[in-house]
Amino acid sequence: MINVGIVGYGNLGKGVSLAIEKASDINCLGIFTRRNPESIRPLINTNVYEISKLVEFKDKIDVLLLCGGSATDLPKTTANYLKEFNTVDSFDTHAKIPEYEKALKDVAIKSKKVCAISIGWDPGIFSISRLLFSSVLPDGKDYTFWGKGVSQGHSDAIRRIKGVKNAIQYTIPKEDALKEVRGGKNPSLTTREKHLRECFVVIEDGADKEKIESEIKNMPNYFADYDTIVNFVSQEELDKNHSKLPHGGFVIRTGKTSIENNQVLELSLKLDSNPEFTGSVLLSYARAVYRLSKKGESGVFTVFDIPLKYLSPLAEEELKATLL
Amino acid sequence: MINVGIVGYGNLGKGVSLAIEKASDINCLGIFTRRNPESIRPLINTNVYEISKLVEFKDKIDVLLLCGGSATDLPKTTANYLKEFNTVDSFDTHAKIPEYEKALKDVAIKSKKVCAISIGWDPGIFSISRLLFSSVLPDGKDYTFWGKGVSQGHSDAIRRIKGVKNAIQYTIPKEDALKEVRGGKNPSLTTREKHLRECFVVIEDGADKEKIESEIKNMPNYFADYDTIVNFVSQEELDKNHSKLPHGGFVIRTGKTSIENNQVLELSLKLDSNPEFTGSVLLSYARAVYRLSKKGESGVFTVFDIPLKYLSPLAEEELKATLL
Repeated sequence: MINVGIVGYGNLGKGVSLAIEKASDINCLGIFTRRNPESIRPLINTNVYEISKLVEFKDKIDVLLLCGGSATDLPKTTANYLKEFNTVDSFDTHAKIPEYEKALKDVAIKSKKVCAISIGWDPGIFSISRLLFSSVLPDGKDYTFWGKGVSQGHSDAIRRIKGVKNAIQYTIPKEDALKEVRGGKNPSLTTREKHLRECFVVIEDGADKEKIESEIKNMPNYFADYDTIVNFVSQEELDKNHSKLPHGGFVIRTGKTSIENNQVLELSLKLDSNPEFTGSVLLSYARAVYRLSKKGESGVFTVFDIPLKYLSPLAEEELKATLL
Repeated sequence: MINVGIVGYGNLGKGVSLAIEKASDINCLGIFTRRNPESIRPLINTNVYEISKLVEFKDKIDVLLLCGGSATDLPKTTANYLKEFNTVDSFDTHAKIPEYEKALKDVAIKSKKVCAISIGWDPGIFSISRLLFSSVLPDGKDYTFWGKGVSQGHSDAIRRIKGVKNAIQYTIPKEDALKEVRGGKNPSLTTREKHLRECFVVIEDGADKEKIESEIKNMPNYFADYDTIVNFVSQEELDKNHSKLPHGGFVIRTGKTSIENNQVLELSLKLDSNPEFTGSVLLSYARAVYRLSKKGESGVFTVFDIPLKYLSPLAEEELKATLL
């Protein structure tokens, strides 16, 4: 059995805990939180501890699953956990991955621990597809589309507008763009041509709808470069129809192996629950971290570095006999 | 530069040679053939040698790309090449992979060479998807569909029928089955429900169409378990409309991360040329073999064992900065 601990019990931590229930080779030693442990109701049968208790599990936990956010939480805390534990995280600020890795490298080497960073589906499974597709079809172009799915960052940005009580934002890939890409036309697509943004917004009584809609549509970085649809709805409707966190998307690469022959490679994910799926991916990489550590490896690993056989609970012989 | 040699110059060898033209870090030292070298016109600018000359390239070739067939060629010859060379092959008889691997293992260890077997898209990229998908979504079911594409084995089987001059067989996935699978219904599908077989057949003057059609449709293993469409065409039509070797297919896994949440993962390939794409995959794994060998590794490797970063010509830092 592989013994793991969960640090942080938001949506991702919950997803990880549900994944542990489906893994017969993994055992959860506890959830560790900065909140009052009494306030947390785990979705699975396990103990909840204050984060300060973690040190007592130093020799019991094989891998720690870090379920904090990428903006401030992980950059501040991962190095510290890595001094005592093997870790897995879902750091997803793409532009800052090299910097994040650099900050952890020496710690991991010194503590002889294995640290898997930026695990999930993007970065993660999508990254695997981008690397694999570009390697096996070098003369081509690839495209990543996201959605249809809830973007937490964009939903939060709307919630910060004065007069807005609540909001959910869906990122939606444009069908025409997908079709053009799949057709092997290698189009140059603008931001606006690739994705649409649809918002469901609950406002305070008497708030100015027109002003809020304009503020959303013109928000730089978040919405200004997109076609954006704004729907005003009641809190009841939001709760009823928009309380799940679906997501997904497409990695498509098209290219040529000779003048006359086109090849189209596509990966697509359609996820009812983004955090549950991300949690499940994280857990499979926790298994890999455990195995790398048992082999005496140490350092920072990404999905590019880890042989896929380490992700499966099955023995190598069985993998080769059944899945190859 | 990585120096490679190509053994065998049928469709796959040609595909590999075209792929080499698109790889700026790989250099072709020659094509090695059992045929008369004079009879071969390479698609790229390289030398053609009799296979007996290969031994002279012992210290010059970093990786040998074995482009023979899986039925008799590879099982008989790979071990011999492996005594002097690192190798990559596309051995694709799924049921015999463990046996094939076993036969090569000791040779590779003894000769301190790296041997990558069963590289291509199935086995290969499809295997990667099956392993990855089943690891990150353990509570689910996966399906592999092939086509639309030409099956060489089925085409050959038709050509062996008396009165048949030529034939091309397409394997076609059934849309209804694909739809049901993507919908997350976890259906149990019979062979007949998953794929359709369509044949284009050229017959000899005066041959009995009805008899030939019946022989095809009732051929055990190949056609008897399928819905099969037989079209009789002229050699001209076959040459005009059915001379390419397209293929592809789908790996779809659907499953649950909790009672209410379904997740659908799908990989699809749409290939205008099966051998050109397979050749391109083979070449990217030749790069990986070279790197594993340089690191002092030896033994038999499959797509499950090789970290994906080794497939790309890009440096690790660049991969992380651009594709992760």
